[in-house]
Amino acid sequence: MKDRYLDFVNSPFGTSIARSLGLPRPETLRRHRADRAEFGGIAAIGAGPSPARFDDLMAVLSAIGMTSVAHESASGWLPVAARHGAMSGRFEPRARDSLANDRVEALIFDATGITQSSQLHALYAFFHDALRSLAMNGRIVVLGHPGASCASVANVAAATAQHALEGMVRSLGKEARNGITSNLLRVADDASFESALRFFLSPRSAYVSGQVVTIDGPSADPQSWTKPLAGKRALVTGAARGIGAAIAATLAEHGAIVTGLDVDTARDALDQTMLSIEDASPSGGAHAALVADIAAPEAPAAIAAALVASGGIDIVVHNAGITRDKTIARMTDEMWDSVIDINLLAQERIDEVLLGQNVLRDDGRIVAISSIGGIAGNRGQTNYATSKAGVIGRVRALAPLLRERGVTINAVAPGFIETHMTARMPFGVREAGRRLNSMGQGGLPVDVAETVAWLASPGSAGITGNVVRVCGQSLIGA
Amino acid sequence: MKDRYLDFVNSPFGTSIARSLGLPRPETLRRHRADRAEFGGIAAIGAGPSPARFDDLMAVLSAIGMTSVAHESASGWLPVAARHGAMSGRFEPRARDSLANDRVEALIFDATGITQSSQLHALYAFFHDALRSLAMNGRIVVLGHPGASCASVANVAAATAQHALEGMVRSLGKEARNGITSNLLRVADDASFESALRFFLSPRSAYVSGQVVTIDGPSADPQSWTKPLAGKRALVTGAARGIGAAIAATLAEHGAIVTGLDVDTARDALDQTMLSIEDASPSGGAHAALVADIAAPEAPAAIAAALVASGGIDIVVHNAGITRDKTIARMTDEMWDSVIDINLLAQERIDEVLLGQNVLRDDGRIVAISSIGGIAGNRGQTNYATSKAGVIGRVRALAPLLRERGVTINAVAPGFIETHMTARMPFGVREAGRRLNSMGQGGLPVDVAETVAWLASPGSAGITGNVVRVCGQSLIGA
Repeated sequence: MKDRYLDFVNSPFGTSIARSLGLPRPETLRRHRADRAEFGGIAAIGAGPSPARFDDLMAVLSAIGMTSVAHESASGWLPVAARHGAMSGRFEPRARDSLANDRVEALIFDATGITQSSQLHALYAFFHDALRSLAMNGRIVVLGHPGASCASVANVAAATAQHALEGMVRSLGKEARNGITSNLLRVADDASFESALRFFLSPRSAYVSGQVVTIDGPSADPQSWTKPLAGKRALVTGAARGIGAAIAATLAEHGAIVTGLDVDTARDALDQTMLSIEDASPSGGAHAALVADIAAPEAPAAIAAALVASGGIDIVVHNAGITRDKTIARMTDEMWDSVIDINLLAQERIDEVLLGQNVLRDDGRIVAISSIGGIAGNRGQTNYATSKAGVIGRVRALAPLLRERGVTINAVAPGFIETHMTARMPFGVREAGRRLNSMGQGGLPVDVAETVAWLASPGSAGITGNVVRVCGQSLIGA
Repeated sequence: MKDRYLDFVNSPFGTSIARSLGLPRPETLRRHRADRAEFGGIAAIGAGPSPARFDDLMAVLSAIGMTSVAHESASGWLPVAARHGAMSGRFEPRARDSLANDRVEALIFDATGITQSSQLHALYAFFHDALRSLAMNGRIVVLGHPGASCASVANVAAATAQHALEGMVRSLGKEARNGITSNLLRVADDASFESALRFFLSPRSAYVSGQVVTIDGPSADPQSWTKPLAGKRALVTGAARGIGAAIAATLAEHGAIVTGLDVDTARDALDQTMLSIEDASPSGGAHAALVADIAAPEAPAAIAAALVASGGIDIVVHNAGITRDKTIARMTDEMWDSVIDINLLAQERIDEVLLGQNVLRDDGRIVAISSIGGIAGNRGQTNYATSKAGVIGRVRALAPLLRERGVTINAVAPGFIETHMTARMPFGVREAGRRLNSMGQGGLPVDVAETVAWLASPGSAGITGNVVRVCGQSLIGA
């Protein structure tokens, strides 16, 4: 589905019309392209007192080829840069009407040392000075610390201040516009944030904003950051079309060998999808199509057998899902049961076999597709929202149990994504879905797929039990 | 501020105009009035397998004078009713175009025994049959079980199904309209839900919908359910006007002796507010106005001294708050610091003295006013949203530490509430705030106040660390 309004207001003619009429003019988001460098430009660094992660941050920036300038709040940055042999300088706030091309690509704030809410002033000072300097499609990342957990909290004031960061990061996302994303990484002392920071600085996270991600376990670096999934085998359910096809293609692009699963009636589309992935893969040869109906009782065993035959599996993406929308009074038993069964129970049945029989290898990854509807509920979707809320509950409950095997499980909750499904919505509903978010537009299937690929990567070993929305910071929530 | 649209479409003339033009016609919410019975009518009961709380549920319905009918999903209800000597019958689904006055006032579903997502079908069956039978301003309450907690989860499938209830309850709230609220109470085995069930069945919760409340500690019944705060002393900050004045008045109506606190510049309004509360109080005599600037370093000690002099305190309501809205680039240091200080740091300073010196008695209650902005962030309110997110972090971090003293701490997060503050908003922003929620209208200060009074009551001893939104199930969230 084309977003004609977005195309129009970003055409030379449309731009001038929109300007003269004062119409909103959402930026066409910059997404990753193989022919363009993923990272580059300058990051401005800010910090609260006692920032704990300057060394790690410097190491990532060096690795991805970004240079840096230090805001006055980050006075310790320059010595760290010098120690790493990296060039750095002082951040100079941009004059309001500056014509100079002096924008930065990212604003990164190390808030890990903030233990009192009065210290939040440093965030104000940094973003007050620096937000205007952030380029279109720029990135805001705040590094925090996991605050209140259920374990007893040693320091209430610190937990308070750390939670307060959420309000700041989400407000900045709503203010910044221009395709700028704003996210908070809560990183435990022993955890590495490189995988997450790379994702959130990359164009790959174009439609992910307003999110809070907790990283609370250690992780090893992947052998390659450009093909982090090299040597990994992935199963993607519902892979024939739409978001599932994009996930399969993106995992393959990241180096994985993908088994795409779909039902018999989608066999042709599935074959085509897997063929085009095959054609795009430099190695080639190993991707496979697997036809199975995950609603069938025998499906989990059949899937397991197929995966075992091809050498086991490292990544499972529960993407297959259906909608059967009706208000509850008009909904039939079959509409309720089939949605709960395919969207939720099938995940349980498949994981039971894959985990129980160790078909999913240690250090494996499970990514389950939920939905904003599973968070906020939705009119006419009691069945769908219930199933997608269940997916979130399952991810949270399973995550601690899978830790000892090194397996992570996370949920990805898409907002309004341009697919054949949304193309069939009534005009008003579709337009509302597209505009009621900080990006002023719908996302693309690849936005969901890149988020899945990030969570599935070896570097994301410390990320489990999270729910990441891919929604352009939709207004809608709970 | 008058909501003229709401008044218009509920006038005889406006109703016909709205009907013929197909305009939305939000119901004028029924709120509690002293001259009307708080409870009455029929509750339809549904249940999943092995419902654990039928006896407790029956006891509450009997106590508040509601009768019941049992849906076929709740086959065990009739024997329980018989055991309690209560009349009950079978629920008959209402014919679609029935002219008979056969509506019920509440739909209550006991989902505590649901341990597998396939069992969620019972919710579908009940609400499919019964939603059409629910009267205007009716109530939906689902009783669940606390699902995934941070402690290891014994039963993943049960945690999944219990979390799935959130999607159902929130979707029902969005479908039902007509002033109907829909809420989920997650009740631990040893916890009593009477206080919460009374609140959510009452017109006092008119603007509270789509909420999930966890009740995981025991509680004693109050001496009186009509004056549950009798004999309690309460402090309300920012009590001169608006929401704070409503909280002071409502706590007094529930029997508390209230100290209203505000700054010197609001002294006249504060005196008037406390005088009118005095006049309305049958006992009279003991309410007090306390002038203090909570931004001043000496304020906590002065407040503590005043409270000690009047015999200590049982309830602290942190309501005082300010806004200083600007985008971050235009915000001044003073605007940031004053908002963080008054909305967040002052709560910390006051509680430190009241808790540290045991001015707040055992079994005390702290209720802190947050905001939807603290959950979702807001453009032009980085300072406010940060402070209000901090309030939520503080509530979550403090709650477990205060348990052993029997002190609870909860946050109340208002959405769009009709006050002098919202009356000054630009028309478009105000209308969006009013309409983008399941009630199609803004709330009133009394809606926030009744929620505070409920959380402050002795019967709510088992409710701590919760964030309850008073937002008419606003679309906005995170």
